[in-house]
Amino acid sequence: MVIDFEPISMEVIKDAHSRIKPFIKRTPIMSSNILNQWLGHEVFFKAETLQTTGAFKIRGALNTLLSLKEQGKLPKQVVAFSSGNHAQAVAYAATLLGVPATIFLPEFASKIKQQATARYGAKVINTKSRQEAEARTLELSREGAYAIHPYDNDLVIAGQGTASYEAFQDVAGVNAIFTPCGGGGLTCGAYLTAQLLSPKTKVFGCEPLMANDATRSYQTGNIVKLADTPKTIADGVRTLAVSERTFYYLKKLNGFIEATEDEIVYWTQWLSHLLKITVEPTSALAMACGYKWLAEQNTKQRVLVLLTGGNIDPETERLIWQNDWLQKVPVKLLSLL
Amino acid sequence: MVIDFEPISMEVIKDAHSRIKPFIKRTPIMSSNILNQWLGHEVFFKAETLQTTGAFKIRGALNTLLSLKEQGKLPKQVVAFSSGNHAQAVAYAATLLGVPATIFLPEFASKIKQQATARYGAKVINTKSRQEAEARTLELSREGAYAIHPYDNDLVIAGQGTASYEAFQDVAGVNAIFTPCGGGGLTCGAYLTAQLLSPKTKVFGCEPLMANDATRSYQTGNIVKLADTPKTIADGVRTLAVSERTFYYLKKLNGFIEATEDEIVYWTQWLSHLLKITVEPTSALAMACGYKWLAEQNTKQRVLVLLTGGNIDPETERLIWQNDWLQKVPVKLLSLL
Repeated sequence: MVIDFEPISMEVIKDAHSRIKPFIKRTPIMSSNILNQWLGHEVFFKAETLQTTGAFKIRGALNTLLSLKEQGKLPKQVVAFSSGNHAQAVAYAATLLGVPATIFLPEFASKIKQQATARYGAKVINTKSRQEAEARTLELSREGAYAIHPYDNDLVIAGQGTASYEAFQDVAGVNAIFTPCGGGGLTCGAYLTAQLLSPKTKVFGCEPLMANDATRSYQTGNIVKLADTPKTIADGVRTLAVSERTFYYLKKLNGFIEATEDEIVYWTQWLSHLLKITVEPTSALAMACGYKWLAEQNTKQRVLVLLTGGNIDPETERLIWQNDWLQKVPVKLLSLL
Repeated sequence: MVIDFEPISMEVIKDAHSRIKPFIKRTPIMSSNILNQWLGHEVFFKAETLQTTGAFKIRGALNTLLSLKEQGKLPKQVVAFSSGNHAQAVAYAATLLGVPATIFLPEFASKIKQQATARYGAKVINTKSRQEAEARTLELSREGAYAIHPYDNDLVIAGQGTASYEAFQDVAGVNAIFTPCGGGGLTCGAYLTAQLLSPKTKVFGCEPLMANDATRSYQTGNIVKLADTPKTIADGVRTLAVSERTFYYLKKLNGFIEATEDEIVYWTQWLSHLLKITVEPTSALAMACGYKWLAEQNTKQRVLVLLTGGNIDPETERLIWQNDWLQKVPVKLLSLL
């Protein structure tokens, strides 16, 4: 495989953090005593749910536009495609910098995400499929607009990395970090940040079993692409494939872990119950996978789970709450000595 | 009406705050820019959702037990009845102080609240009705246990008042404060605190239309008692009647406002969407009523809304999300000049 890009130096994430810091929230690290008692481990959650626009995606979008501005290359127009949180992030960042934004959103994208994107000041255009959204974005970028790719962009990856950068500053001695993996921007950012601040930390990508393209890519060493948008409830990781750029780092992770839809819903209910914040299924996915990893450990571990966002459609809320998983307390993994 | 108690001096709330401060969280004041833009007013939320035990009730329970301890009267056993958050609070406070607690909970109480009460270390006994829970509590207290009443207790009222006490410290120039009114502890506390720190602030009690005993009591000047537990989704205010003690202060409020079940659900969805924290219907009730009041104002107002808790059963979640209210953006009340 030929790579036609320069690997991101770890310092780039530090710079990204200084750059975007004035415009983002330092989201809190949360934990639940009762959960830690149950598990016999220490789980720390980075609550990007409480980030501006309700998700970590604002970090990548802002880093991209602010970097371009610093270089005197602030575009006259930006364009993006996304099924959700990235769209809102680009809309918000573009409006903040006074640049008009056009967002192509597949019709199946969550309605509240569509609404919010428009509310943040972007022109929202619906498309029939993700493929069409991607194609029309390319078209507009050929006409001169700057396309902010959701993950295949070093500035975006560096921006997303600032979430784990803050988390590693706030929590020392982390044995492992768990991140949901869609296109891989956040996960690559976590990998790079761990190298910089916490090189002993194991980094894991987390995927729904029914959208496990990255896991299969990792296992086979070649990028696997899904034929159709997977129907997982974790709508933030419905991406068809990772990119060459993200796969370059993803190959170096300690592993990928998969979770079933029931496991994702289980942790969506439990984390919203224990932490009292809105937890997207995509965020709960990281805990579901972290739990599986913890279940295999014989000694007490300290782990970080990135809660990526809190934008949930009423329709998805109905799916989440159709069974009562709160009746089933998480199984104790390790007895406290 | 003869009152057989000494009115609470406003200083008592200040003392309560110093007493419980080391054991509770200073919960954040939250707001939503977009909501404020829509309404043309400033709405600040005191997020007791993020309080220990997931609700403000820990304040009253802790103030009661810590006060008794200071007086050298720490009881050997405590007992309480509650359909939810008060039960958890008493369980938690009693365990903290090393006192065994028995809680009588009506069978219809939210299952997660029952679970959590047991988890905090209390002995939980289910009863067929709220009346039976009340009777058995009385029985046990006659045998020597100290009964912590959910609202008919000065120490509890003073404790609950510390929520608004903190809010008034954090937000200046508040025109009105909105509190859900069940038995009236929180609302009385808000009234007393406003007298102490913000005497120009109007204080309103908020009730579901289908559980409007306090509103009718306020209107008629006599305590109205509901015959049966009302079926409102706002399970924190299903109380049958206020007490003489709370009514003494409630009569002095600026008013009571009622909300329909749809209005309560509407704001439950919208606040959880905008603030990204778990909002109990009982909390959303205060916003529903605040919104109605704001709709009648001709000038820009700054208001406080007490978000009382975030403990929601999966069954209630299903009820909350069965319709999609997020399609309907709140109506603009006042154009920003």
